Order: sequence, then structure tokens, then C-alpha cells
Amino acid sequence: MKFPSPVSIQWISELIGASIQGNSNAFATGINEIHKVEEGDLVFVDHPKYYKACIDSSASFIIIDQPTSFPENKSLLVVKEPFEAYLKIVRHFRPFEKATTSISHTASIGEGSYIAPNSFIGNHVSIGNNCIIQPGVSIMDYCVIGNNVTIQSGTVIGSDAFYYNTKKNRDIWYKKMDSCGRVVIEDFVEIGANCTIDRGVTHDTIIGEGTKMDNLVQIGHDVVVGKNCLFASQVGIAGATVVEDGVVLWGQVGVNKTITIGKGAVVMGQSGVTNSLEGGKVYMGYPAEEAIKKRREFVWIKRIPEIWEKLNKG
Amino acid sequence: MKFPSPVSIQWISELIGASIQGNSNAFATGINEIHKVEEGDLVFVDHPKYYKACIDSSASFIIIDQPTSFPENKSLLVVKEPFEAYLKIVRHFRPFEKATTSISHTASIGEGSYIAPNSFIGNHVSIGNNCIIQPGVSIMDYCVIGNNVTIQSGTVIGSDAFYYNTKKNRDIWYKKMDSCGRVVIEDFVEIGANCTIDRGVTHDTIIGEGTKMDNLVQIGHDVVVGKNCLFASQVGIAGATVVEDGVVLWGQVGVNKTITIGKGAVVMGQSGVTNSLEGGKVYMGYPAEEAIKKRREFVWIKRIPEIWEKLNKG
Amino acid sequence: MKFPSPVSIQWISELIGASIQGNSNAFATGINEIHKVEEGDLVFVDHPKYYKACIDSSASFIIIDQPTSFPENKSLLVVKEPFEAYLKIVRHFRPFEKATTSISHTASIGEGSYIAPNSFIGNHVSIGNNCIIQPGVSIMDYCVIGNNVTIQSGTVIGSDAFYYNTKKNRDIWYKKMDSCGRVVIEDFVEIGANCTIDRGVTHDTIIGEGTKMDNLVQIGHDVVVGKNCLFASQVGIAGATVVEDGVVLWGQVGVNKTITIGKGAVVMGQSGVTNSLEGGKVYMGYPAEEAIKKRREFVWIKRIPEIWEKLNKG
Repeated sequence: MKFPSPVSIQWISELIGASIQGNSNAFATGINEIHKVEEGDLVFVDHPKYYKACIDSSASFIIIDQPTSFPENKSLLVVKEPFEAYLKIVRHFRPFEKATTSISHTASIGEGSYIAPNSFIGNHVSIGNNCIIQPGVSIMDYCVIGNNVTIQSGTVIGSDAFYYNTKKNRDIWYKKMDSCGRVVIEDFVEIGANCTIDRGVTHDTIIGEGTKMDNLVQIGHDVVVGKNCLFASQVGIAGATVVEDGVVLWGQVGVNKTITIGKGAVVMGQSGVTNSLEGGKVYMGYPAEEAIKKRREFVWIKRIPEIWEKLNKG
Repeated sequence: MKFPSPVSIQWISELIGASIQGNSNAFATGINEIHKVEEGDLVFVDHPKYYKACIDSSASFIIIDQPTSFPENKSLLVVKEPFEAYLKIVRHFRPFEKATTSISHTASIGEGSYIAPNSFIGNHVSIGNNCIIQPGVSIMDYCVIGNNVTIQSGTVIGSDAFYYNTKKNRDIWYKKMDSCGRVVIEDFVEIGANCTIDRGVTHDTIIGEGTKMDNLVQIGHDVVVGKNCLFASQVGIAGATVVEDGVVLWGQVGVNKTITIGKGAVVMGQSGVTNSLEGGKVYMGYPAEEAIKKRREFVWIKRIPEIWEKLNKG
Repeated sequence: MKFPSPVSIQWISELIGASIQGNSNAFATGINEIHKVEEGDLVFVDHPKYYKACIDSSASFIIIDQPTSFPENKSLLVVKEPFEAYLKIVRHFRPFEKATTSISHTASIGEGSYIAPNSFIGNHVSIGNNCIIQPGVSIMDYCVIGNNVTIQSGTVIGSDAFYYNTKKNRDIWYKKMDSCGRVVIEDFVEIGANCTIDRGVTHDTIIGEGTKMDNLVQIGHDVVVGKNCLFASQVGIAGATVVEDGVVLWGQVGVNKTITIGKGAVVMGQSGVTNSLEGGKVYMGYPAEEAIKKRREFVWIKRIPEIWEKLNKG
């Protein structure tokens, strides 16, 4: 999340009760989680295992639970509970807003767009022109819908990321990182019924122009989908994965988090994509491999009895 | 889709700007996509690869992008953009109707049927007697629900088919074929929560008498399900597949499009049905095969190390 | 289901038209299906195959279709159609109540809890303090939600069990056993969007404190989930299964009915859990096995061509 305007680190340190190490006259331009952090951003870290990754990231300001060495173009904000500090900042700039009506007065809806009964359009949502929003759709706060977009019944755009701060030494192990990112849906996208598209934790989940999804598809937080992709029913894509242009995922395909599926790849039904895939090829199975190899493997498995027999005869 | 009454081909050619080849005094009784076309119907084709299939189909009138040879009991309607012409005809006879209320004034709801709050009943929907429609259900335009049907919360009946006209030489590769088919749900059917049942593209998706579905089930366009079937949670069935009477699909089973699952077949959880299956047997795995064979295969795979050892000893 | 107060067996026998064998002066404290039955309960059985299991169960009163031998601390209620008798009792004590408003007047909602527009809160629902119920959620009759619970849009809590009385000699093979159980969600649970959690058939489905679920998760009837579990998107758990504390199920995992997943087990994405799993280990594949073994199996499969070659050379 970018702040509306640069925010003094001094002011932030007071908000969260941190002591500053390094330059205290600097200004932060936003706050992001580690995968999406950019120069000028705040980031937080609460375990020595991740100190180095945070210090080495693009972040300019690191909210941390103890002092450590850091380069001179960065500052540390030392605080006992960095995760709580992160939540405090996020909630200051993006406070929880109750909805008081089904269609928020702060939402903007373009010309020629139709919102069916029983739909929910949250605060600060923007919907372009000539969209069709069918009954029972929920579009949550701050999401952005382009032009000529169709969303079928029961779909949820902008549910919170499934992203937790984990500590097994407390009663409740998992505490949610409040999502302050958005979902951005580009022009000519069509989304089926009862789908779920999570907002980014601190950044945007993006569905590229002309992409079409069938029913019951799940798109995790911070996923970036290219143009002209086709996702059949019950596909699930985990957080922060990149799906390049023209990718086809057939029914019930599952895709791991933080990987990339290359341009024009086709993944056969029910496959499980565990690692990044090169574009332009057809994949199959669990873990997903090139279909031509996987099919040969299926044939080899069927030949095991023949091998056994030959071995015993030999 | 059948037209309300036979329509002059002359009139249609004017609507879509086509030139007629063959008998121009004929009357069309409906329009259907190639898989569901019947005598008297219009069909469209926009690629030479499919000319023969269309000419040889039951269609009486072929909307086509260039003249070709055809038998004398048929006519061609030659037009530059057959897909746009198809859309024009469909939209003429089935124009997009906005819903102005949660329960349409044009819907008919039988005696003893209960529609819970937050449900949507679209235009021209027909619901029989003694049905229970739980909260948050959406039943879209023209769908037909029989008697003694229960539909649990959040389910969508009559979402649009996931069916596109594809051309990769334009900016937006996929253009939706407007669905003008229906969903027809017969008596004593029970459907779980958050399911999605797509309408037929031009024909009907049918759920046979006494069939029961668990939650989060997906039924594609033009699927025909027989009587007394049982589908467990998260099953997905792709477009235009036939599931005969008494079939049991356990949880998370995926079924390919345009295939047939024979009477009384049972498919174990998570299986992937890629090809038609004979009735009366139990199936398992991906691709789904008879369970008895598949289980043996699992045993053989576990014996590979033994084979390797024996081979090296021998 | 426990009755509001003990009910005379004499009175029940009149309600269902049964003849009593054994002590007719006894009082029943509830009615339960066979998996959940306790002392003092009624149970029903309508097939000789299950007579012994019912007679030997904790049930005190057996509704049965013909006399059979039974121990002296129990009674039989003999009636022609035991399943219809069961329904009659359930419907007497838990009659179907229509909802007349989106938020029932008989629901109790704790301090600081927020119910977004378009949500449905059924009769006799109890919601604790500081909960967030997002738009389009349906919480069905009698469900109990603890404190600090978040439920995202479109989720259904308390849909009916997918549980049927089956007889293939009638027109409609499957008749639903009316669910009179509840869903109980403990404190600090978070549930994603478009999930479905079925109520128990006669008992409770329970989600333990601090457990977090992603979107499109299915939880079957009478499932008991422990504390601090993590279920990723599109997980499905079938009826009456027990998931102990701290279990992690990654995306699209399917879990069989009436099994137990031990404390702290981790199941990799898309796995199919067919049998109970010991706690503290990592599992993978279909059927799910220890990941370390499964990975070795994957390697062995890839070596079949090498084995074949060696065999032919040898």
C-alpha cells in the first residue's frame, strides 16, 4: 500500500512506539509485505531468520524487534512487537469501514453498467462502463473493475488474503495480516459464478484484459494474471503467483504459490503445478510435467507386470 | 433455442445482412450450436475446418462466412461475421433483461414453495410446488424447477455457459457465445450450498428426478444428469456430458466434457474421468479406470524397488 | 439432538404408531443417528444388516421394523417404517421454521459484532462478541458462533447434511435424513469466502478455537476440527471425520469420511486422505502416504525405463 502522501518516519515511530536507528528525518511512501516491497516502503520482520532478507530487500524502513546491522541508506524502527506495529500502521491508513448500504455511496459505477439485486458494492469501489454484475456478487472495499466486465452470481471480489503471522508459543497460533491491497480487474474480463478473488495483502491482485474464468475458481492474494487467459471451473491459484498471457488451465487444476506459469502454457485438468512452468507447452499430472512425458510414464507404469514376468522368466 | 414460432429465413437474412443461397422461402424453427442442432434449426460456422460438420449436421440453415457446396434440402446464409450474426439472432429473441426486483414479477412460484430472504428469482423462472429455496440462492432467467426440490444457500442455477468463440488474431481472443438455453431441474432433486449449474448454450442443462448433490458442485452447460444420481461435494462436470441414471460420483471427482458415464457407475473420490465409462462398474484414479485394476497398479508401483533389487541380484 | 426435557417412550410410541417391546415406562433424552448415539437416546434401524450394531450401541431405545432380541436395559419401538418414524420425531421437536427477515428476531448477536448487508442470520442463531460477518453470508438456524470470529462473503454455515436413507426399490432412491444438529464455531476462528459448513445430522459440527480456513472450503456434517488448524482453499472434508489440533491441509486436499487426522499432521496440496493418519508427519498423494515415501515412489516410477533397458541388456 502506498500512503496518500509521504509520511514522516518520526511520526510513524511515535505511532508505533519505536526507536529509530539511522536517519530519522526520512519519509516513507508506503508499507508492504516482503514479497512486494519497494524503495521508500516500510516492511516488518519479527524473526532473526528473516532479518537478512528484509535488510537486503528494497525496503527503506525496517520495523524490527531488535537492533541489527543495516546499510546507511536504510533505517530501523525497533519495537517489541513488529507485527502489531505493522497492523497499527495499516489500520491507521486503512481503517475498517462498516458498510451501511448494499451499494456504497462512495462507490463509483460507470455508464451502462448494471448491478443486479442482492449484490454488494463496498466502499471506494470503482466499476467501469458497460459491466454486468449479476445477483449476489460481493465486491469489497477499494476494488477496481474495468470496462465491459461481467461477473456472475455469488462471486466475491476482494476477500481478505489467507496470510497469517504464525507463532506457536501463543494460544492462537495464527494472526491475520490485515489486507490493505486491492483487486484490479481489467477490461473485457469475465468471471463465473461463486468464484473468490482475494485482494493483495499490501499490493494488488490483477486479472488481465480479456481473461475468462469459469465457476468456483479461487485466485489467491497478489496473484497477477495476464491477458487472454482461460481458467476452467474449480481451478485454484495460490498467493503471489504469476500467470502470463494466454495461459489455459483446465478444470480443477491447482497452482502453488509464488511461482510463474509462462506465456501460452496449457495445463490439463486436475494437474497440480508445484513449480514454475515454461511457456508454450502442455502440462499434466501431479507434480505437473510436460504431458508428452507424463503420458509415456502412464504407459510405463502399465508395463510393470510385463517387466516382472520377463524378469522371472529370464 | 426454439423460436416462439417459425421464422422466415428471408426476415433473418435481413436482420443479419446475409445473402441466401438455396431456398429462401423456408422457415427456421430455432437456432442451436453444433452439438445440439436439430432439423429446422439455424447453426453458424466461421472456419473452413468446421464447414463439413455443419453442412452434414441436422441443421437446415447454415450461417457461414463464404459460399460452399451444400445439399438441396438446406440453405446457406452467407455473411462476413457468422458469430456476430448468431449473437444478433439470439439477442433479438432473448434480449438481456435487467432484474428490477429480487423476485421477478414474471416468475411463477408453485403452492407450498418457500423462497427464503436474500434469494434471487429471475425473469420467466418457473418453480413447482413444495420447493425450499434457501437464502442467497440465485435462479437466473428462464430456468425451470420441478416439485419438491430443495436448493441450499448460495447456489446459482442458470449461470452462463463457459463457451467462447476463439480467434487469436484479435485483441480479445475469447468472445462469449450468449447462452439462451435453460436449466431444467426435475422433481425431488436436492442441491447443496454454493453449487453452480450453468444453463445450456442453446439447449437445456437437465438434472434428473431424485438426484442429490452436495455442496460446491459444478455442472457445466448442456450436461444431462439422469435420475437418482448422487454427487458428493466439489464434483465438477464439464459441458455437454451425459451422466446416466443412478451414477455416484464421490468428492472432488472431475468429469471431462462431451462424454457419457453409464448407468450405475460409481467413481471414487478425486478421480479424473477423461473418457466415457461403461455403466455398472467402480472407477478410480486419473485417468479413471476400473478400481480393481487401478488398485493392482498401485501395488505394482510399490514393487518397483523389489524388481530393481532382483534385477541387480540376478 | 437432545430433547428439551426427557420424553416418555409411551408418548413417542403414540406419535409414531409403534408397539413397545421391553420397558414402556422409560424416558428418552434425545435422538441421534448411529455414529453419535448416547445412552438415553433413540436410534432407528430399518435393515437386518444393521440390527446388531444398533442393539449393541449406546442407544436405549431402538426404532425398528420388526421384533428382534435385545438386552433388558433397552426397549424396542416396532414400527413399519422406522425412517419415517425418525423424521416424525425430529420434525416434532425441530419443525421447519420459515425465515421472515434477513436477520431473525430470535437470533442473538453479541456486542461489537458487525453483520454486513445481504447476510442472513437464521432463527435461534447465537453470535458472540466482536465478530465480522461479511456480505452475503448465510448462518442457518441454531448455529453458534463464538467471539472474535470472522466469516467472509458468501459463506454458508449450517447447510443440511448430505446424508440419505437409501432404498433402491422405490422411485426416489435417496430420502434426506433431516438434519437437527448444529454448527458450533469457537473463538478466533476465521473462515474464507464461499465456504460451506454442514450442520451435524443429529449432533454438532465443531470448528475449534483459532482455526483458519481459506475460500471455497467444504466441511461435512459432524466433522470435529481441533484448535489452530489451517485449511487452504478448496479443501473438502467428508462427514464425521475428526481433525485434531494444529493440522495443516494445503489446497484442494480431500479427506474421507469418519476417519481421524492426528495432531499436527501436514497434508500437501491435492492429496486424497482415504484412511486415518498419525499426527506429526507430512503426507502426500493419493492415497495419501508419508511424503518422504511418496517422493521416493515418484523417483522409482521415473526409473522404469532404465529397469526395462537393463533387463533387456542383461
